[in-house]
Amino acid sequence: MTYKEISKEFLDKANVTIGDRILVSKDDISYEGILLDRSEDAKDAYIVIKLDSGYNVGVNIESATIKLIEKGDKPKIGYSGEKIEKDSNKDNISIISTGGTVSSIIDYKSGAVHPKFTAEDLLRANPELLDIANYDVKALYNVLSENMETEYWVKAAESVADDINDGADGIVIAHGTDTMHYTSAALSFMIKTPVPIVITGAQRSSDRPSTDAFLNIYNAVGAAKSDIAEVTVCMHNSLNDGDCALHKGTKVRKMHTSRRDTFRSINSEPIALLSDGKLKSINLPYIKRGENKLKLNTNLETKVALIKSFPGITSDIIDYHIDKGYKGLVIEGTGLGHLPDYMVETLQRANDEGIPVVMTSQCLYGTINMNVYSTGRLLQDAGAISGLDMTPETAYVKLAWALGQSDNLDEVRKIIQTNIAGELNESSSLKYFLN
Amino acid sequence: MTYKEISKEFLDKANVTIGDRILVSKDDISYEGILLDRSEDAKDAYIVIKLDSGYNVGVNIESATIKLIEKGDKPKIGYSGEKIEKDSNKDNISIISTGGTVSSIIDYKSGAVHPKFTAEDLLRANPELLDIANYDVKALYNVLSENMETEYWVKAAESVADDINDGADGIVIAHGTDTMHYTSAALSFMIKTPVPIVITGAQRSSDRPSTDAFLNIYNAVGAAKSDIAEVTVCMHNSLNDGDCALHKGTKVRKMHTSRRDTFRSINSEPIALLSDGKLKSINLPYIKRGENKLKLNTNLETKVALIKSFPGITSDIIDYHIDKGYKGLVIEGTGLGHLPDYMVETLQRANDEGIPVVMTSQCLYGTINMNVYSTGRLLQDAGAISGLDMTPETAYVKLAWALGQSDNLDEVRKIIQTNIAGELNESSSLKYFLN
Repeated sequence: MTYKEISKEFLDKANVTIGDRILVSKDDISYEGILLDRSEDAKDAYIVIKLDSGYNVGVNIESATIKLIEKGDKPKIGYSGEKIEKDSNKDNISIISTGGTVSSIIDYKSGAVHPKFTAEDLLRANPELLDIANYDVKALYNVLSENMETEYWVKAAESVADDINDGADGIVIAHGTDTMHYTSAALSFMIKTPVPIVITGAQRSSDRPSTDAFLNIYNAVGAAKSDIAEVTVCMHNSLNDGDCALHKGTKVRKMHTSRRDTFRSINSEPIALLSDGKLKSINLPYIKRGENKLKLNTNLETKVALIKSFPGITSDIIDYHIDKGYKGLVIEGTGLGHLPDYMVETLQRANDEGIPVVMTSQCLYGTINMNVYSTGRLLQDAGAISGLDMTPETAYVKLAWALGQSDNLDEVRKIIQTNIAGELNESSSLKYFLN
Repeated sequence: MTYKEISKEFLDKANVTIGDRILVSKDDISYEGILLDRSEDAKDAYIVIKLDSGYNVGVNIESATIKLIEKGDKPKIGYSGEKIEKDSNKDNISIISTGGTVSSIIDYKSGAVHPKFTAEDLLRANPELLDIANYDVKALYNVLSENMETEYWVKAAESVADDINDGADGIVIAHGTDTMHYTSAALSFMIKTPVPIVITGAQRSSDRPSTDAFLNIYNAVGAAKSDIAEVTVCMHNSLNDGDCALHKGTKVRKMHTSRRDTFRSINSEPIALLSDGKLKSINLPYIKRGENKLKLNTNLETKVALIKSFPGITSDIIDYHIDKGYKGLVIEGTGLGHLPDYMVETLQRANDEGIPVVMTSQCLYGTINMNVYSTGRLLQDAGAISGLDMTPETAYVKLAWALGQSDNLDEVRKIIQTNIAGELNESSSLKYFLN
């Protein structure tokens, strides 16, 4: 274990080792949970506890007391870490980890928090996975997804393309949930893929002590073996550990801070449901395995901003972004795609300077239509581009990608309003609401 | 009618008068619908057509052609505009119009677009309303709600208080839908009320030619007569013209750009359902008529901004707002309430300068919890205030109001985290998701 010096002494005194259930008290707060190993570079005076809620907390042991509640079990597994021979009858699935709760959950089962996520960690934790595929696993980076930056999208896309070139039959990406839908949209625009690319993670909602990671990963591997050669998000479909939903990467959004079924298709429905690692039902047409050749296009303009409108917003905020050299703006407007009409002049300025402004709606559901009200018509006259039925998040990613393809305003407008990766429905359906 | 000169000549030539069904063609576009009167100050060369979708379009008649399809009916009503005597057996309901689609719909039925909305317009359009109450009606202002500014909230609150002081048994506010939920939150914080204050409007979704205004107003009057003395939003509960839902003013949000049941309770459920102008079911406890005395508190700090986080956001945007003299910020973060951790320093700056930063989530559903992940803890250490289970929009309004009560950071923090008007649930329930 990586505990040493102060923290090792603190643990040894209480006869506590990794995997034990402990109670740590400090000031007015107590934490009960399982002692985890921690990363190599963690500060010495901290220990990491996995709470029953499933979340990890780091506790500074200064002036803390510790009590052993119960010695821990050894990991209950069949697989003990030996090198696995590939079985030529099984699909080769590449698992790429990027950090986030899902990795820590996997580590939880093995009783260790490693900054580097290995095939052995994964398989030790989830030996059932060995039955359904061969694996190549790599840790691409290790960030909480709220810290994800646009450059990570490029790295992930390149890594996926490498694996496909190396013969992977499908890709599973383990990712934090906060910005999973931004990444899924980015990979959707950046990669034309002959094989499934499935992003999954863990939400570990505090309402249930058990983890959702295993079901999500198991079904994500199932989806990666399937015929659905698109970029998708595979997560719980309900509060129960039943089905997983496979969402189109450009039509999905995190909609609840803690529920395990937080990811929902917006203005669409899941392409498929999975159960026990197998497709259970298909709801939408999809691109089939091998239909597309691999094509990578990671050009991206990162000087793009997403701005939310509200009563009291001022034109200054648009001017600020123009003055700062932003190349494109996505507005999260109200209703059918509105900004206060006193903002029209500054939108016109953006247009005159060749800066595309894409309008989306804070309603999230439904489509932009700037033809209905006078305000919308004014905004259109000033150059605002309808984001149609894209979420603000997908429109943001798409604008960054579109500006990577062209800096010509008319061309960017055309890209925004052309379906590239399933992000635009041909006809908007009212039925996709809160489903 | 207010058409004159060019437009009158254009209409006269085709023997068209207000209320007639016409086809206007221009360039490659044709509009078929009912000719409406237009406002006094409209430009001469425009005519206004009510499309079958329910929406109004203004068409510049230059180089347009017009065809009469069918002469219009006279308004089919029993009430012809005479002064109505108040019936002492009926409740006195005050109807305040602020503009938006709902007013134009009412006008549609009377066949005229008046900039000033009168009791006569309303009752001529909806004579059924006469059966259930006496009315005082006033046009407070006439703006599309995307153009609503914070000062309008103050005017509306003052107008409501006047009417309550004048003996109104209930208030109905007709409002545009784009920012209805911002106004409902503002009035919730500004007014303690002994009588119901019900905000309603019309969505006029393009999927159905018929208007939703009448059902909404009729049930809003029903709610205004009820025992529920809170600020509420009364709108369609489904796509059908069946029930209306009565939402808590601080727990509601427009969730679809065009559906008539667009308003949904977030992290809550409607207080009640109404049908045929009567309460049909009660879901939540509520403040009863007369329980509160009228108290008006319209102090508001308008220098507050709502900022959405996204991968690639930079600290500059926070610094910009601090430098511009903003007094408070609401962040629409990711997940449980996160910003990239490189933003922590600038949040600390805001805190050091006494500027409250309230964290909300772009998930919308669920509650903020900055104790779970390291990023959240860093943000809290830098002074970020949890918006708990408030929507970003309600948190924005509440922060503006809180800063109107105090400029002391600790006091503002306390107000934000104290339930004032039903905006905070005592315990967050996972069950309120997409309902």
